[in-house]
Amino acid sequence: MPTTLPLKYVYQFIEPGPVVLLVTALPGAKPNIMAMSWHMMVEFEPPLIACIVSSSNYSFAALHETGECVLAIPDAKLAEQVTGIGNCSGRTIDKFTEFRLTPLPGQHVMPPLVSECFVNLECRVVEIRFVNKYNMFILECIKGWAIPDKITVKTIHHHGFGTFTVDGETIHTSSKMP
Amino acid sequence: MPTTLPLKYVYQFIEPGPVVLLVTALPGAKPNIMAMSWHMMVEFEPPLIACIVSSSNYSFAALHETGECVLAIPDAKLAEQVTGIGNCSGRTIDKFTEFRLTPLPGQHVMPPLVSECFVNLECRVVEIRFVNKYNMFILECIKGWAIPDKITVKTIHHHGFGTFTVDGETIHTSSKMP
Repeated sequence: MPTTLPLKYVYQFIEPGPVVLLVTALPGAKPNIMAMSWHMMVEFEPPLIACIVSSSNYSFAALHETGECVLAIPDAKLAEQVTGIGNCSGRTIDKFTEFRLTPLPGQHVMPPLVSECFVNLECRVVEIRFVNKYNMFILECIKGWAIPDKITVKTIHHHGFGTFTVDGETIHTSSKMP
Repeated sequence: MPTTLPLKYVYQFIEPGPVVLLVTALPGAKPNIMAMSWHMMVEFEPPLIACIVSSSNYSFAALHETGECVLAIPDAKLAEQVTGIGNCSGRTIDKFTEFRLTPLPGQHVMPPLVSECFVNLECRVVEIRFVNKYNMFILECIKGWAIPDKITVKTIHHHGFGTFTVDGETIHTSSKMP
């Protein structure tokens, strides 16, 4: 079961640039999942995360209308499912069922966590002024979840067309940062 | 020597989330380098890239005043230099000299390319409306450069405090995207 991930650590999971799953839910509809790689940290704490969600995506309306989402970080074992999720639309497919993923209720937002993901971030949209021009949303993470024994899992980074690099060696350089 | 990287391929190098070097140059001053991990793709072509540059960074004024920069992507062999670059300020240190990097003139912007980096992107600032509130700039890449024989090099992804993961295995999943 996931336990609380303190908000001050959230950036350490987003800054490396892994593929994430964006989970949204329109009222009365099944929750939906989108694969996303166009996101970045904007502020450490409270954690702000910018992301691009194309207005052609089914997830766009849910994110825009509800102002809520979950960002779930999959590990490398889920790579085929991530590509599958990116290759179909929630308009016609229930992706949790199709890709054998387990929704888990969050505490603060309607969209569920993804049980199989080692980190889940409950988020609210806090900035929509760049939606029209750039499809850009800014999210605030209000609650983080992590599966402790999975904290060293390997994430995946998308290079386009279903090709990913998996995290390899970890190296520690001599940072003077506090 | 670097050769032209067609603009339609730029996203494939930014989307995976590697650490990049932001090169800027105030008129009459030596060019400066900053290590950056808070960036994301915004549009495929012409390539738009959003990034966060704190107003406390020496690079902020140069980027804001000149509206020009180079994004250079270092490989894993440069990890110690990347951390060193992130640990000091261009206010007092000439980073190209200090970290034994070689500036190379670009074609369209004043800041130089970094010869040792396998990809260099000449960029212009095209959006500053989110600078005041979020320190966010949106850049348009107007010219890309790559060293062809280095195209499969391993990049690094920052997890905080000088800890990086290096690209590991490459996996190909069954994408249906065109």
